[in-house]
Amino acid sequence: MAHCALLLCGLLSAGMAHAEDGYDLWLRYHTLPAAQVDAYRAHATQLIAPSSSPTQQVTRQELQRGLDGLLGRTTPLADAVTSDGAIVVGTAASSPLIARLRLDTKNLGHDGYLIRSTKVDGHAVTIVVGNDDVGALYGAFRVLRLVQTMQPLDHVDVREAPKLQLRVLDHWDNLNGHVERGYAGNSLWNWQKLPDWLDPRYTDYARANASIGINGTVLNNVNAQAAILTPLYLEKVKALAGVLRPYGIRVYLSVKFSAPIEIGGLKTADPLDPQVQRWWREKADEIYQLVPDFGGFLVKANSEGQPGPQDYHRTHADGANMLADALAPHGGVVMWRAFVYSQDNTDDRAKQAYTEFKPLDGKFRANVLLQVKNGPIDFQPREPFNPLFGAMPKTPLMMEFQVTKEYLGFATHLVYLGPLFEEVLAADTMAQGKGSTVAKVIDGQLDHHALTGIAGVANIGADRDWSGSDFNQANWYAFGRLAWNPVASSRDIANDWARMTFTNDEAFVKPVVDMMMLSREAVVDYMTPLGLHHLMGHGHHYGPEPWDASGPRADWTPVYYHRADHDGIGFDRSSTGSNAVAQYAPAVAAQFNDASRTPDAFLLWFHHLPWTYRMPSGQSLWDALVQHYTRGVDDVAQMRATWARLDGHIDAQRYRKAATFLAVQQNEAQWWRDASIVYFQSLNGLPLPAGYQPPAHSLKYYQSLSFPYVPGYQ
Amino acid sequence: MAHCALLLCGLLSAGMAHAEDGYDLWLRYHTLPAAQVDAYRAHATQLIAPSSSPTQQVTRQELQRGLDGLLGRTTPLADAVTSDGAIVVGTAASSPLIARLRLDTKNLGHDGYLIRSTKVDGHAVTIVVGNDDVGALYGAFRVLRLVQTMQPLDHVDVREAPKLQLRVLDHWDNLNGHVERGYAGNSLWNWQKLPDWLDPRYTDYARANASIGINGTVLNNVNAQAAILTPLYLEKVKALAGVLRPYGIRVYLSVKFSAPIEIGGLKTADPLDPQVQRWWREKADEIYQLVPDFGGFLVKANSEGQPGPQDYHRTHADGANMLADALAPHGGVVMWRAFVYSQDNTDDRAKQAYTEFKPLDGKFRANVLLQVKNGPIDFQPREPFNPLFGAMPKTPLMMEFQVTKEYLGFATHLVYLGPLFEEVLAADTMAQGKGSTVAKVIDGQLDHHALTGIAGVANIGADRDWSGSDFNQANWYAFGRLAWNPVASSRDIANDWARMTFTNDEAFVKPVVDMMMLSREAVVDYMTPLGLHHLMGHGHHYGPEPWDASGPRADWTPVYYHRADHDGIGFDRSSTGSNAVAQYAPAVAAQFNDASRTPDAFLLWFHHLPWTYRMPSGQSLWDALVQHYTRGVDDVAQMRATWARLDGHIDAQRYRKAATFLAVQQNEAQWWRDASIVYFQSLNGLPLPAGYQPPAHSLKYYQSLSFPYVPGYQ
Repeated sequence: MAHCALLLCGLLSAGMAHAEDGYDLWLRYHTLPAAQVDAYRAHATQLIAPSSSPTQQVTRQELQRGLDGLLGRTTPLADAVTSDGAIVVGTAASSPLIARLRLDTKNLGHDGYLIRSTKVDGHAVTIVVGNDDVGALYGAFRVLRLVQTMQPLDHVDVREAPKLQLRVLDHWDNLNGHVERGYAGNSLWNWQKLPDWLDPRYTDYARANASIGINGTVLNNVNAQAAILTPLYLEKVKALAGVLRPYGIRVYLSVKFSAPIEIGGLKTADPLDPQVQRWWREKADEIYQLVPDFGGFLVKANSEGQPGPQDYHRTHADGANMLADALAPHGGVVMWRAFVYSQDNTDDRAKQAYTEFKPLDGKFRANVLLQVKNGPIDFQPREPFNPLFGAMPKTPLMMEFQVTKEYLGFATHLVYLGPLFEEVLAADTMAQGKGSTVAKVIDGQLDHHALTGIAGVANIGADRDWSGSDFNQANWYAFGRLAWNPVASSRDIANDWARMTFTNDEAFVKPVVDMMMLSREAVVDYMTPLGLHHLMGHGHHYGPEPWDASGPRADWTPVYYHRADHDGIGFDRSSTGSNAVAQYAPAVAAQFNDASRTPDAFLLWFHHLPWTYRMPSGQSLWDALVQHYTRGVDDVAQMRATWARLDGHIDAQRYRKAATFLAVQQNEAQWWRDASIVYFQSLNGLPLPAGYQPPAHSLKYYQSLSFPYVPGYQ
Repeated sequence: MAHCALLLCGLLSAGMAHAEDGYDLWLRYHTLPAAQVDAYRAHATQLIAPSSSPTQQVTRQELQRGLDGLLGRTTPLADAVTSDGAIVVGTAASSPLIARLRLDTKNLGHDGYLIRSTKVDGHAVTIVVGNDDVGALYGAFRVLRLVQTMQPLDHVDVREAPKLQLRVLDHWDNLNGHVERGYAGNSLWNWQKLPDWLDPRYTDYARANASIGINGTVLNNVNAQAAILTPLYLEKVKALAGVLRPYGIRVYLSVKFSAPIEIGGLKTADPLDPQVQRWWREKADEIYQLVPDFGGFLVKANSEGQPGPQDYHRTHADGANMLADALAPHGGVVMWRAFVYSQDNTDDRAKQAYTEFKPLDGKFRANVLLQVKNGPIDFQPREPFNPLFGAMPKTPLMMEFQVTKEYLGFATHLVYLGPLFEEVLAADTMAQGKGSTVAKVIDGQLDHHALTGIAGVANIGADRDWSGSDFNQANWYAFGRLAWNPVASSRDIANDWARMTFTNDEAFVKPVVDMMMLSREAVVDYMTPLGLHHLMGHGHHYGPEPWDASGPRADWTPVYYHRADHDGIGFDRSSTGSNAVAQYAPAVAAQFNDASRTPDAFLLWFHHLPWTYRMPSGQSLWDALVQHYTRGVDDVAQMRATWARLDGHIDAQRYRKAATFLAVQQNEAQWWRDASIVYFQSLNGLPLPAGYQPPAHSLKYYQSLSFPYVPGYQ
């Protein structure tokens, strides 16, 4: 023992430097306080888990790793229950012991699980059961979560099945290692060293995803490079698929519509051209030879300069269906993005996706999902739900959220996205009357679709902490949890995450969860309050540039979106304006069409109003705007004060990092507030309401700032 | 104790995943075997070290961290020697105790050190003394090395001072995070999060460098971006300088000669223009306001498209001296690169640097160093020494080595560069008769220069293992050790490195050091034997392309360098050819001018010979060439076999990684050998010598391979 301790000390002092660098995510498995350790050991006296399949093996390994870490001792493996407190894991097929129990697992589906305290051979045990190995794996992670968050194990009865079928992370990773809109370093994928070198980090990535039920990964950027479909790269894709497979994760690829020309040597990529169709069929066959459980293709076509079927006067359906036909024999799907808008189209950008896709409802093959961003523009701090949700009942719509914070302060701002996701999922489309929530649209309930899915644009890179900050990990975590259950509570999720990632210390968890829950409204307030949107720096989207009116296209400039002048501000999308409101179900349209019935949060999204407009609060619009901007800064100051009080509750390394980032966030929130106010004042000439601090600098100063080499942009 | 152990187990099981990921470099500090621990504890009963300056603080911290780790217990701090076995660290100025000893430290200079077993107040102690804090810091690292490599501490008497003044790492890091010729991920510098967030990794970077005596860092790429000189970035530079300063490391910047135009708003960058001179003076003043100990500028001018003084019909001296005048008042230096060649100049590329710079000898300011690459072309597996060494007695010449393996297999090939560095440093220029080695040129002995230096192009990135493989760390280490002492033995350095990085287990160290020492000749053989050079893939330099004759310029194509045809091969640089030999001292020139006296290693560098040429061995040149190519592959097979025998001697994680990379290296060595032989055969139509395996594929096959998105290239 003494010698062992010695050795440990040695390893430790060497390891200290990176002991708390955030690498372990929410799978930290540090030993629980002594009191809890004793309690839980009584519920983990034996581990009975099969290990004949790769998934069974990683399930057993994870339970051993987790329990050994959390309980500070080795959990003995056993083949039969010989004492109270055994944990029995598996499926009826893999475990005769479980088969004997004849459990009702019908409604668990393929990847659901059942965790129950019961008796086996007279002994009290905890059983963890799925219909398939992956269900048991998910159940095992759930058991570990129960212990990590210190939930009792005496009378467990958990029955869970995911509400969505495809729970996917989209990596916007280029083959040269650059991550578009990535703020956590280079791509996780080391294409040069693949397929030979399988970085252990790939396995930890798979563990983290499996722990929250993510079952798909799109490896490359939607602005795709054709080379990913060449044999050189497909061998590398195969290698990654092999690492992810035991964890129930399928790989998908983003494909470039012009690939048949670029790497196929064809003259055209016309989806109705037989040679093109043949090329894609053979390419699909080639991929499935290498990756039998390949998930399918993600496609960004005729959007922001990407090639697509319209280059040949074909429809999006023509393009999607051609790829769907190539994948169908192998069970693959096409995730076709609805994020399209054209610079030749002078109509309100917010309307264009609906205009293009609504008429195509019912024209897609059965294995096509239409991937729709949560809002009509582009991942803003707040947008109303995308009008396509509820508008295409014959087409499976897949949600696309952004987990990386392209428009929300990059890596350093503490913005917990749980409430944003929750707000969108809970939004009522009224498509089939009250209660037609976005969640019910995407989970197939509303229109009876079996094929369902959700995608999150990953915030993961090679940075040691995976996501560029420890708090950004919460957004990865929350996305996975909401992908599993779109009606889960973002607050509950934050609570679990904080406990698993930092500590169960109540004095820490409560204020931190409150801070996280406050953070999203804060960023809306200091960046784009009252329905304003897209006021970020040109191209790189870092910092405020509400004054920007530069090219190459109007709908990439802030002035296009806020339409502010001497008299008023806001984008008139009512019936007197672009009439984007008409794209929503009548009840919703009627509400958004009427400024007095439009929630403050969306006011300037739908209406152009005079600065003197009376808000429900009785304030003028201008005074309310200034108040919101200021409140955003004050909220960050409060978050910072909260964190300052928590020094000592967690390790110094992660504490200091978050403290530093909160200081950055406060400075940048102030910058946003001041630059925006001084600019709008330059238009309306109005004074600040009494008691509000004037902007720190002149408009000229804010306009003079420039930021070359901002990350994530190219 | 039991509780402590419990806690440790918890931390450990969580830490396991990255316990042996290579992050700790050669500063691993894992607890020594029990036997040694007891012996060394007797020599570390107390630690007496001042802590009033930042450098003193990090010195003390490092000794505590190292000794606590290596000896598995806390070393007590003390103010006075009260027992045998004390370690006393400091300077006469910082420690009255050391002052009392009146040691002879004159010849230690600013950063040398003395380590000696002696008596203080009747107690046996080990003293670690420097004239300045940084000398004591270097001494402290040396003490740790003694323990790490298990050298006795009973009768130590070490007196060391560096032979070179500026020991610098050049980072070819761009401000967008891309590292030119980098194979270890993104840049270590997170410019977006600087100056606020100081990644703890910056400190570990400083520790690693200080441990081998590196005292300078050029933060950005020689293909410089002017933005690094804007206030936005200088604030970030200041923050990094603050982290490195306590470790005796100064920061330098690469500057773009056209910066006065790009960011200064001037119409010209003419070095003789008073406005331009003033702009640089004021820029230097601005930098020193922020970084009082700023090191100076590194400049790549009029080379590979970079702007420079010749754009204004001025000389390199005019350009360097203007910058030198701006830095001189602050004690800064200019490191002006001699790596120049022009596409308008049809003369042998190998001659151009000499032709341009030799006439400028004596025309540079006193604070200018001319930074000369080791060879006349560009970091090839083997080149003869650069003829500028010894040819410019009035100018301090600074060596530029490449630590990153641009032309030597990138991250995966195991190539220990110690022997390459050693070979160049030991080369005899004969400039002042026998013994005028390159080492004596750069350390100032030969021409009596006080200002001396050496630079290494770093192989460091954000990858967890810093250098893209654990064995690449040895090249960073060896560069530092040879920068400190250019006549040190690369084998001894490999021995220290292997012990500190892996284990002192003799059964491991001996074969690994043999393998490392073999590795450089292996890569020469399988890539470019007998003096061949620059046969790598166009632009990215990955893999063989000896057939490449594509644009944009001849001197970037392999055919320019090997000149092979039906009858023979090699670049005639003798008096019958480009006469590059004439740039060497007469004795050397005479030798290289005569094929029969030219070492095999340089034969085809200096001579174009018929395939049937008789080698000293009696073989034909062609047979010898095939033999060398084949031997290179066989050597890698042997390295791989050696490593296979060592499984179990070290941790599985690092073992498996090196084993995987060696397999990659063997495949790629075979590829190099086969592609080169099949190509040369297509020219000379000669059969392989008896018993040699034919190439695996056709020339067409090798020519068909293409590699988009190769790392490190843009």
